Formats: sequence, C-alpha cells, structure tokens
Amino acid sequence: MAGTASVDTFASELVPRFADQGYDQESVALRREWLERKTESRLNHIGSFSVPSEEMKGNIENSVGTAQVPLGIAGPLLVNGLHARGRFYVPLATTEGALVRSYERGMVLLTRAGGVDTRIHVDENCVAPAFFFGDVGEAHDFGNNLLSHFSEIRSEAEATTKHGRLLRLEPLVEGRNVIVAFHYFTGDAHGMNMIVKATDRACGWIVANLGAKGYHIFSGFESEKRASAVLFAGGKGKKVTAGTLVPAELLKAYVRAVPAQFVSLWQHTMLGHMQAHSVGYNGHFANGLAAMFIACGQDVGNLPNCSVGITNFEATPSGDLYASVTLPSLNVATVGGGTGSGTARECLAILGCEGPTQAPKLTEIVAATLLAGELSFAAAIINGELVMAHETYGRNRPAAGDPRAQYK
Amino acid sequence: MAGTASVDTFASELVPRFADQGYDQESVALRREWLERKTESRLNHIGSFSVPSEEMKGNIENSVGTAQVPLGIAGPLLVNGLHARGRFYVPLATTEGALVRSYERGMVLLTRAGGVDTRIHVDENCVAPAFFFGDVGEAHDFGNNLLSHFSEIRSEAEATTKHGRLLRLEPLVEGRNVIVAFHYFTGDAHGMNMIVKATDRACGWIVANLGAKGYHIFSGFESEKRASAVLFAGGKGKKVTAGTLVPAELLKAYVRAVPAQFVSLWQHTMLGHMQAHSVGYNGHFANGLAAMFIACGQDVGNLPNCSVGITNFEATPSGDLYASVTLPSLNVATVGGGTGSGTARECLAILGCEGPTQAPKLTEIVAATLLAGELSFAAAIINGELVMAHETYGRNRPAAGDPRAQYK
Amino acid sequence: MAGTASVDTFASELVPRFADQGYDQESVALRREWLERKTESRLNHIGSFSVPSEEMKGNIENSVGTAQVPLGIAGPLLVNGLHARGRFYVPLATTEGALVRSYERGMVLLTRAGGVDTRIHVDENCVAPAFFFGDVGEAHDFGNNLLSHFSEIRSEAEATTKHGRLLRLEPLVEGRNVIVAFHYFTGDAHGMNMIVKATDRACGWIVANLGAKGYHIFSGFESEKRASAVLFAGGKGKKVTAGTLVPAELLKAYVRAVPAQFVSLWQHTMLGHMQAHSVGYNGHFANGLAAMFIACGQDVGNLPNCSVGITNFEATPSGDLYASVTLPSLNVATVGGGTGSGTARECLAILGCEGPTQAPKLTEIVAATLLAGELSFAAAIINGELVMAHETYGRNRPAAGDPRAQYK
Amino acid sequence: MAGTASVDTFASELVPRFADQGYDQESVALRREWLERKTESRLNHIGSFSVPSEEMKGNIENSVGTAQVPLGIAGPLLVNGLHARGRFYVPLATTEGALVRSYERGMVLLTRAGGVDTRIHVDENCVAPAFFFGDVGEAHDFGNNLLSHFSEIRSEAEATTKHGRLLRLEPLVEGRNVIVAFHYFTGDAHGMNMIVKATDRACGWIVANLGAKGYHIFSGFESEKRASAVLFAGGKGKKVTAGTLVPAELLKAYVRAVPAQFVSLWQHTMLGHMQAHSVGYNGHFANGLAAMFIACGQDVGNLPNCSVGITNFEATPSGDLYASVTLPSLNVATVGGGTGSGTARECLAILGCEGPTQAPKLTEIVAATLLAGELSFAAAIINGELVMAHETYGRNRPAAGDPRAQYK
Repeated sequence: MAGTASVDTFASELVPRFADQGYDQESVALRREWLERKTESRLNHIGSFSVPSEEMKGNIENSVGTAQVPLGIAGPLLVNGLHARGRFYVPLATTEGALVRSYERGMVLLTRAGGVDTRIHVDENCVAPAFFFGDVGEAHDFGNNLLSHFSEIRSEAEATTKHGRLLRLEPLVEGRNVIVAFHYFTGDAHGMNMIVKATDRACGWIVANLGAKGYHIFSGFESEKRASAVLFAGGKGKKVTAGTLVPAELLKAYVRAVPAQFVSLWQHTMLGHMQAHSVGYNGHFANGLAAMFIACGQDVGNLPNCSVGITNFEATPSGDLYASVTLPSLNVATVGGGTGSGTARECLAILGCEGPTQAPKLTEIVAATLLAGELSFAAAIINGELVMAHETYGRNRPAAGDPRAQYK
Repeated sequence: MAGTASVDTFASELVPRFADQGYDQESVALRREWLERKTESRLNHIGSFSVPSEEMKGNIENSVGTAQVPLGIAGPLLVNGLHARGRFYVPLATTEGALVRSYERGMVLLTRAGGVDTRIHVDENCVAPAFFFGDVGEAHDFGNNLLSHFSEIRSEAEATTKHGRLLRLEPLVEGRNVIVAFHYFTGDAHGMNMIVKATDRACGWIVANLGAKGYHIFSGFESEKRASAVLFAGGKGKKVTAGTLVPAELLKAYVRAVPAQFVSLWQHTMLGHMQAHSVGYNGHFANGLAAMFIACGQDVGNLPNCSVGITNFEATPSGDLYASVTLPSLNVATVGGGTGSGTARECLAILGCEGPTQAPKLTEIVAATLLAGELSFAAAIINGELVMAHETYGRNRPAAGDPRAQYK
Repeated sequence: MAGTASVDTFASELVPRFADQGYDQESVALRREWLERKTESRLNHIGSFSVPSEEMKGNIENSVGTAQVPLGIAGPLLVNGLHARGRFYVPLATTEGALVRSYERGMVLLTRAGGVDTRIHVDENCVAPAFFFGDVGEAHDFGNNLLSHFSEIRSEAEATTKHGRLLRLEPLVEGRNVIVAFHYFTGDAHGMNMIVKATDRACGWIVANLGAKGYHIFSGFESEKRASAVLFAGGKGKKVTAGTLVPAELLKAYVRAVPAQFVSLWQHTMLGHMQAHSVGYNGHFANGLAAMFIACGQDVGNLPNCSVGITNFEATPSGDLYASVTLPSLNVATVGGGTGSGTARECLAILGCEGPTQAPKLTEIVAATLLAGELSFAAAIINGELVMAHETYGRNRPAAGDPRAQYK
Repeated sequence: MAGTASVDTFASELVPRFADQGYDQESVALRREWLERKTESRLNHIGSFSVPSEEMKGNIENSVGTAQVPLGIAGPLLVNGLHARGRFYVPLATTEGALVRSYERGMVLLTRAGGVDTRIHVDENCVAPAFFFGDVGEAHDFGNNLLSHFSEIRSEAEATTKHGRLLRLEPLVEGRNVIVAFHYFTGDAHGMNMIVKATDRACGWIVANLGAKGYHIFSGFESEKRASAVLFAGGKGKKVTAGTLVPAELLKAYVRAVPAQFVSLWQHTMLGHMQAHSVGYNGHFANGLAAMFIACGQDVGNLPNCSVGITNFEATPSGDLYASVTLPSLNVATVGGGTGSGTARECLAILGCEGPTQAPKLTEIVAATLLAGELSFAAAIINGELVMAHETYGRNRPAAGDPRAQYK
C-alpha cells in the first residue's frame, strides 16, 4: 500500500489536537506556531485577531486565527421594501479594486431616483433526499401516496427542531428512484443543518413505514452550493425582486447613458449568455454577494446558487428605464452560522439587521444592493469605462482626479 | 422627479471623501466614526485590523477596516503534481462548522493512499466582446476573415501589457452579431483587468479596420462571475484534474465505506443533478473554494464559474476506488489582486505559493484539496454522518469525544 | 423598397388558391401541376396518395399530396402497464436503416424478461403566458393574489372547451413581469390549440380584472417545441416511466453483455452528457419517438420537448440489470391532430389505440418502446456493433446471413 | 426466469422473416397480412404505397408499406445565399393545421422585403468517443500528445471512406477519461454511419498505439439526437444564419405590427426561455424542421439537435426590423439516407436540391424557411392571432373568408 512505510511516523504529520478542540487563546497560538515551524512561515497578521478565539467554536476547527479582508462602505441606498425601509450603508469586504466605488455610484443613482422597491416572494430552504425502490411500480405508488402521509412526515421532521417548519413535499419519480424535495421555513437562520437533521429523521420514518429500500440524504436536486436551472422555480432560499424606475435625465446625469443603450446592451449580452448557456442572466451578482456575504458572516459557499438570477432593463413608454433584479435562490441569515460575533455582527448592525426577525430585511437590502451594482456595471460597459475605472481605483495605480466628480 | 426635494441636503448623506481617497489610518478611522454615528453602531472589531491601511489601496474604496473570518488549517495533503509536490497544510477561512474537519479527514485518507496526482491542462483567461454588423453577410465575412488579422490584433492587445499574451481568437457568429473570445495567458495574475484593457484596445482597432459598427467589451459569453455550460470547454481560467486510487482497505479504515457505495452514490446523485439541471456535478466544490479563496486573497466573486466541475468515483477491476475531480475553469493567482499583503500573503506562504511563478502550484493544491472534500462529503452521505458531524462540530454544540478517533 | 418593382407581377408567384381552400381531388391535382411547371419537377409519388384529399382539411394547407415514409414493424413487446397490457407490435416510420431491427432486438429481450412495467405520473398540458405590470410591487401583489381568483379564471378558461379542464396555475414573478403556467387536463387530445384558446380568454379576464397591463400568450416558459430543463418537473405532457429487471443470463444470450458493462457505459456516457450540457440523458429517444410519431400521426414538432428524459441502468444485488426510462414531457394523442385518418389511424389500430380513452395506453407503449431502443443501442455500443449493424442493414449494403440469428 | 414457460411457443410471436429480408412486394404484403391477423386491423392505406418496396432496403426493416403524411407547399421564398439563389417553393409534410399557411405568410413578407440573406459558417459532423486510462496522469499525457498523431489517426479514419475527411480532433480530459471529438467533412451526406465507421477504426489504432485501455464509440458529448448547450459552438452539422431587414411599412402591411413590438416580444419571451432554461431561443424551429425533414427524407431523429438555435429581432436606427435566425447544428443531406427515392426525392427536386453538391443549397433554404416561420409566429403572438388561425385552418373547422386576404 502506498505510504505504508511512513505509517509509524505519520502521527507527527497530523495537525496537533488540544483539549476541548483547542479553541482557547493559548491552544490557537500553539497550533499557529506549530504551523509556522512546519511550513517555515511567519503568521503575524493571522495571529492579530480581535475576535475572542473561544467564540470561533462551531464555526471553524484547527483554528490558527482569522483572515482579514479589506472592508469598505457604500451608500446611501434608499430601499422601499416591506421589511427594509430607509437609507442604508452597505458593508462590502473585497479585494477587487473599484468594486465599492461602482456599487456606490449605482446606489446614489437609485436613491436619487426615489429608491428601490423590493419584494420577497418565497422564503424557504430545501433538502432533497433520494429514495430507492425495487421497480417502477413501487416508485410510482410511493410518489402517488406520499402526500397522504404529510402530517406524519412533518411530525417526524419537526420533532428535531424548534424553529424549522416543514411546508411541503415534492416527489419526483425517476425510474425506480424517487427524489423528495422537503421545503421548510427556517426563520432567520440559514437552517441547512437544522433541516438536514429534520429530514434525516423523516427519511428514517419513510424507510420504516413506506417501503423505501434506502435513501441518500442529498440527491443533488437540492442544488446546495451549485448553480442549477431548477433554482428559478424558487424554494431553495428566499426569492426576492428589486426594481426602480430610473428617469432618463438621472441616467444621463449620473452615468451618461440613455435607456435605449441599456436595452440594447441587455439584448446583446443575453445572446452571449445563451450561447454560453449560463444559468441565469446578470452582470456580476456574484461580486456584490461575495462582498456582502464575507462582511456579514453569511455562507460564502452558497454563492453559486445564490448568484443565479436575472437582471432586466426595460424601456418604458415614458422614455425612462425600468431596471430590476430577480434572485430566486438567495440564502441569507441573521442568526446562526457566522452571524453572531466579531466583524460579522458589526456589519449586520450597520444595516440594522442583527439577530432574530431581521433576515427578510437583510434579504431586501441585498437585492437592492445588487440592482445598484448591475446598473453601474452596465453603464460602465456602455461607456467603455471599465478600463478607466480599474486604472483609477485598481491596485497601485495613481488616482485621476476627484472620484466624486463621477456622480455629481 | 422622485427625491428632488432633498437634493440640497443630499450631499450630507454621501460617504465622506478624504485626500488621496483616504487610505491613511486617520482617514479610515474618521470614516468609520462617521459610519458609527450614521448607523448608530459600534465597530470595534472592524477597526482592529493589523494590515496597514495604505496597503488596501487598489483593493477597496471607502475603507473602514477589515472583516475577520475564522481561519483553520487542514492537512497533511500529499500532492504529486507537476508543480506542487510534497505535503501541504491548507488554510481555510470559513464560518461553516465541521468544514475544516471534513476536509482534513479526506486529506489524511488521500495522503495515506499515496497522495493526489494533479495535472493542469489549460492555463488561460478570456474576455469575449460582441461586435455589431449591418447584416448576416457582413457578420459572416468578418467571422471568416478575422483569423487572418490575428497578428495585428495581437500587437494591439499586447501593446497594453507586459505580462499578458494573446493566444487565440474564437469568433462566434449569431445573426448579424459576432462574439469574439479573446484567450490570453496571464502568468501568475488573475489578469482580468489586464486583459480587459488589452482587449478594449484591440476592439478599437477592429472597429477602425474591419468594419464592425461597434462593440460591447463583455458579451456575457466570457462567463466571468457566472456558471455556464461553456466553461467545460476550457479557456476561462485554469483547467486542472486531480485523482487518486484509494485502496478499499483504506476506505474502510478511514471512512467506513466500500467502493461500490461511492459508485452507487455517484449514480443516484447524478440523477438529481440532471433533473435539477446543474452546471456540472460535484458535492460541494464551492465550500472548499470559498474557504481557500477568502484565506488566500483570491477573487471570491469568481466562485460561480470556478466551482463548475465534475467529481467522479469509479470502481476499479482491483476492487478499489478511483476518485477524481475536474475543474475546467479555475481562476487563481499568486500576484496582483488581494494576494500581496496581510493575511492573504501569509496564507500563500503557508502553501509555499507566494508571488511570481507560483500560480500553477496553487492551482494543483486547490484541486487536491477539493478532491479531499468530495471524498469526505460522499462518505458522510453514505454513512449518514452529516447530522452527527454538525452536532459535533457545529456552532454551540457539545463535542462528542476525541475527534481524532474519527480517522485513527 | 426592395422588390417594389415587381409588385405588379408578384401575384403570379403566389401559390394558387382554389374554392374552399382547394381540398378536393381536382384542386390538389391542379396545384400540384402548377408546382411541377413552376419548379420543372415530376411529382408522381407525391400524387399517388390513398388518403381522401378532403380528409386532409385541418391538417395541411396548399396540399399537393402526401409524403410517403417507409413503415416497418417491431415486436413483440410485452407491456405490463396500468393501461397497456399484453403483447404489442409497434409501427415505426423511418429511413434510418437498422433502426427497426435494433428496437426489435430490445423488444424481444424485454418480452423474454417478463415484459416492461410502465406507469404514468402526470397527465397535463401547459400554456404559460407572460403578464406585464408597472413595477415589482404590482407584480408581487398579482403573483400573491392570483390563486385566490382560481375559480373565476377556471370558469373563463373552461367556457371555451368541452374537454379541457384547468387544473392549476403557477405564477412565476420576474422583476415586474409575471409568467403564469396554466396546467390543463386535455383528455386524449394533444390539446394545444384547445388550451391556447382557453388561456387566451382567461388572459383577457385577467387584464380586465387583475391589473395586468398586457400579456403575451406564449412566454417561452411553456417549452412547446423546445428542449428545456423545466420539463423535468412535469406538467408539459405526460410523465411516464418504464422499467424491467433484465436477468444477467438473458442479457448474455440476447446482447452478449453483462450488467456491469451497462453501468460502466452509463457512467462514462453521463460524463459526456454533462460536459455537453445536454438536457437529459438518453441514448436515442428521438429515434424511436420520431418513428412512432410519424407513423401514428403525432405532432412531430414536439420531438425536442418529448425526447427530454433519462435512461438508467442499475446493477442489482442479484447480479442482474434494472433498466428504466423516464419521460417527463411526452405529448401523445389518440384523437385530434393527425390521428384520425389514413395510415395514422391504421397505425393506432395496430396498437389498439384508436380514438377516445386510448391516450394513456399509447403513452405506456411509447415508453416501453423507448426502453427497448435504449437497451439495444447500449448493447451495440458495448459490443462495438454499431458499425456492423449499419453494414448489415444500412442502405445499399449486402445482407450478412439470417438476421434472426442475432437474437436466437 | 420470467417468461420461460412460453419459450417453446415464442417463435410464433416473432415478426416473420422472408428471403433476402423480404423487401420484395410479395413479402411485404405477406408481412402486412400477418400483422393484420395478429392485431385484428385493416391496413389498406399502409399497403397503398407507390414507392417500389425494393427501394426501401437500407432504410427500413420488417417493412409493411409506408406512412402517408399530408404534404403542402409554401412560397415563394426569395433566398439570397451563396448556394441558394432565387425563388423557392418549400414542401412541408405535417398534420398541424395552419402551419403551412403561417410559413407562407412569412415567406411572402420576406420575399417582398427583398429576400433572405443566408450564410453557412461551419460544415462538419462529429463523433466523440471516450477513452479510458489508468489515472489522471495518463489521461493528461494522452490529451497533451494526441494532436501530434493527427496524421496517423486521419489515415486510419479515412481508410474506411471515400467521401469523409477528418478535419480536426478535440480532446476533452475529465479525471482519467478523455473524450475526443472527431470532426469530419461529410460532403452532401448526413454521414453519421460513415464517420462512426471511420472513427471506430481510428479508435482501434489509438488503443493499440497510444495507451488507452478501451473506448466507447459514443460518449454522449457528440449530442447526436439530443439538445445540448455544446451545439452552439458549432461542429455538429452545418452552422447557418439567415437574416432580412424588414421595412416597417411591410411589417405593417403584412402582419399589422411595428418593429418595437417584435423587440418587446423578444425580450419578454427570452425571460421565459431563461427561467425554463431552454437550450436556445426560438419560437418554433421544430415545426418547420419537422415538416421539411419528413418531406425531404432527412433524419427526423436529429430534430432535437437541429432545432437548437436562436431567433433575433433587432430594431434598426432607420426604424425597421432586422430579423435573423442562427442554426448552429443543422444536419441535412441530399445524398444517402432517405433522400434517394420516392416522395423525398421529388421534394428535393421541387427545391432543385437533388443529389450531390446540393446540401449547402438545401441548408440555406431550410434556414430561410425557418426565418419565415419565426416572423409569422411572432406576429401571431403580437396580434393575438393564434387562436383565430387555428379556428380558421385547424381540423374540421369552417374557413372564414378568403385566406389570401391575410397578406394582400
């Protein structure tokens, strides 16, 4: 067997373990020092964290400190949602120069245009186990009868959680296998761990009572951490829209473009998306999402599914522009995960979104932020400004005059 | 016009500007204090950064400090690549409990199995402008003749950059529009800004000399920041594979599973991916990528395209498991962007990947890391361990015994 | 204006018109003669049709006769469905040599294995108009309230049809637009004209009563005549599965292969499908569907949506093969369209599927036929027989011995 | 074993075999009579074929006659291609009422607008076998070195064919497997059988000489008979575009619509396509393709791949409409397959496309025909005419006045 010769000495290669998993300040320091020796590196910045190391428990293992990501602020962003109402300043953690400035430009434009209308359409999270049967007949009967057992299955699932509620089940038969999408309301938490646990228990009941020969807790259909077409249907995260009627005169003043240019860009760019066969159409949702997610302690691994969505630019009979974004699968949380401590908690506080009851508000602010980013990015393509913007704000380049002039 | 009434007082809402864009320590502090007042929040952790604020120039605007993300270490990971060779300890910045432990388990298993073979197949980056013509005849002739002007176009493009090299052009005609994919070698940099600038200049030449009526620098076809089917063809980032023959006895010892279970899981999960119509098949590439990208100063906004890829589990005639991952579109860099300072630079140092010439090495380590994560995740599904793992390592839950027992 | 000069003489270029649209024998002959003169061609075969020309009314305009497509028969195919039960001989109209023989081989194998289990899961058809609103708020409210008007909308829709029943509405909000999928039961008819008419009337009511500013009867979301990922969810046509446990000894005897070869082929081929980003996985559903559709008077233009589906080959613990197909979006009819006269009616009679109440039976036979084709095609790839098969049966090639030997 | 009991009597269930596979008139009649008895049906129309039964050899097995499909004619269609030039009348075999009339309307409009410009961009066909290796290193080396063996591989492949030419190879590495796309020029034939045979021989050489452990002749990547995103890249069939500048006044006169309505419809419908995640955007390519394919003896099973493509409606600065279609993957042939006899040959003659050298001409006529269908269909949606059209022309409905009035 490859590597057998080194078995005896292999223990010395393993990352050292400490009592209670080593979340205390001293264990973290010892582990970091071990790593410095092992890799001949100096880890001063990593060790210069302000978050109490014990608070990292539940978020990280083998901790050696923190990664620091530059944090900027963009705003004001006026949001007219059902949950978020008023002017917001949005924290963005990124190393992509010009990104904060670009979002800021869009926010100022949208605020001047009267703000961004936002609406939430669906608020769920999903786990989709696959069940196995002996033949297509058994699979058919299971799929057909499943919903008649909804209350029993819900009882099992909800027995494991105080906050999660099982809303609906969707069976999807393929040959002799049946995927069942379990859709839950998870409150202000991301809730993936919560609903995996709940679903796992329900699966056990299904195997015991409904004839399934076995199951896998994930079938792939849930699209957790992946971009998939099925996400447009909603049910994996929050579906949210944001839109603003942008008067032509403001477009001209702030981004030197006319509505017809946005519509033409949309059409041309759509043709590129189609030929690339993208999942959804947008300019750069992932940029704004990544920056807000890192800042606010969200699950950055969800970026591929959360960034699936559509940006739309429509000319109006009045000669203005209606700009909107649709995010069918946005996972954000204000409790649990990385939201409860350190800089993440502070960033949520900047938005007035700390803790329980605030997830819908955060959802609407995210959507409005992305709309700002899309408008600004589109204008940059229309005006050929991308190169200039990166020349001005990109790493180690001289600034070219007062940036505020840009959106005067 | 909406909001007109407040124009006079609107200036007070804008984020304050400082000399030289305010990267000095004092300006950052003043901006943060302004934000605290404006949002009635306390931003102590955000202000407790160790990175010199002046070094953030080029990576962020309107800086108020840094976001701190918990950083753990996983390893050892033995890599047998053409660029990465030896045992590595991989820095992962995340707030998803159990993630580091899960990757570590896979790494130990792979190292014991003799390590991970890695290979790079393509090393490019791409910008794909769209050009507009009067009719399908003009578009056809442009597409047909473009390659005969390659040397002139390359001269224009490369006139703007010391490091980028234009490798090839691919015209894609749709009606009377033509997308042209410009593929570059960008050395150890991500290079997007570099090649946008180069392409922009080449586009100007094309409009002046080859009859195009105009262009948009992005057509959508480049799939920057988006998941797209076209990424499988390679040419947007680095295409890399990683694979290991895992002996059945090691699988049993480390993850209590047999090869046939991995193959069966693969088949069932593929069926879920297909019905969701995912772009690519993998368990959770995005988790490992997000954690490494945040740690190592990579562009996290690229996660949707970088996480497109395939995990494969094949049974071998010898009764063992061949596990592999294929990443057709991985963008990583060791110079430029966020790689040059602070914790990012230290994380790259941990991997021996600081600075020039190291991007291929980093590429191979990333691929090997993802393979570890896929194996461990698959085993967790097979064994029903997901709930247990999160119970053990998830936020604010009691630990259940010595975790090392898990892979002893 | 281009062509203006010829306006006066343009009428002579138009296809001639006859009384009552010219479906009588004489008018058809005159039109054909006109065409022969105009194009200097001889159309003897086109004119040698047996179907009364008057019966073509409603199926064709400007009739000049019929196209004749070679028709072969494959069977026996034993089907154990809920609607189709017994041995069937399937009519296949095609010009692809070896196709009938290949399906026949699969049918004989499946019949010997005890027949094909078939089940129908969904039986609907769908039209998905798009409605336009002024902003995201209006679109949200419409989407939210739509279902409370279900009974009024159903009344409007069903006022236009005796057979169609509106089953459910699914609103899908994007920005300030809302697609609404109208799902109907259409009995034994394809029903597209029926439900377009019904939906059109309901749309009028919605515009008049629910604030929509306008609508397009097709939004593209219905996927009529196109392959789309959304089809896997069911609701556009009949969702049907077919499966058989094929004993290893029969596989060996009939197609000289073992179950593991089918599983391995499935895995390898899936990887190709993924990298091509196909919509669904199957070997050649379209071949069997095209041949049955032409024979049985089905709407051949539906092939792109109907051929979306999954073939699955699973090894069983007993060492045998479970083979299945899943067709989520199969549109077939036994009344209306081209089903009522001529060779189509005779082909339906061969299957015992003429007229009302027979569409579910036809659905199950189609699914079982496709399973036969998939097994046979897979075996041909495994055994490298494709070349040989076309050598033997392909156009203008000498036959190589008694073909029955192939499955004796 | 299921069905074992009936083995002895099973032979009587098999479709009877005759000498030389029974293509003579008498054998076909005997087989049809056997089928009539077996299924208690009367097959008079099926038996009333005019094509000599012996000519069906190579296109069908177990022949019982022909299926007759109503055939109509639409035109004139003025085409300004590089291969097709002049006015054409297009044969369409369909049972979908109103289809011929709808295409005819579009053709007359396009002819009046000066005709359709058509261009062919790629003319290839493709087989994509998958090769298997021991590990990612072997797969990498194979992929890396393959092109250096191009001339040897081409020699092997072309040794089997007089007409096919191997143009290029594209390796696509996944883990330890490598798909290789073999792209051929196949002249005027569809050529699938030809290039499968050629590729099969080349695969044998590759296994013998380049270290592959085995191969499957189809990997799924070739997308034969399936809709796939990869088809947009071209190389599977002929890539062709067709476009016309349609003056606003003609649009108004012929279809009562203005250019802005087409652009708005395009935008709204695109949003539906995206949310359905269609492969490609078009109104109903499949309708026109199915009707031409059945008429002209093309391979109808290719409809799913051939119908992938894009329709585009662009407003021009002059206030007119530029309408175009792009078909990246159109397989048509004028020799081989079903093209050489009976009604198919006559339909090709109507178009002046019989036999060698005519495939490019047929390609351009198909593209122009689809453009006509798209314009007419879009106008019908804009004007709410779909219901009316089917009322007028659909099966068994009274005609409403002179149809010519429609485009006078």
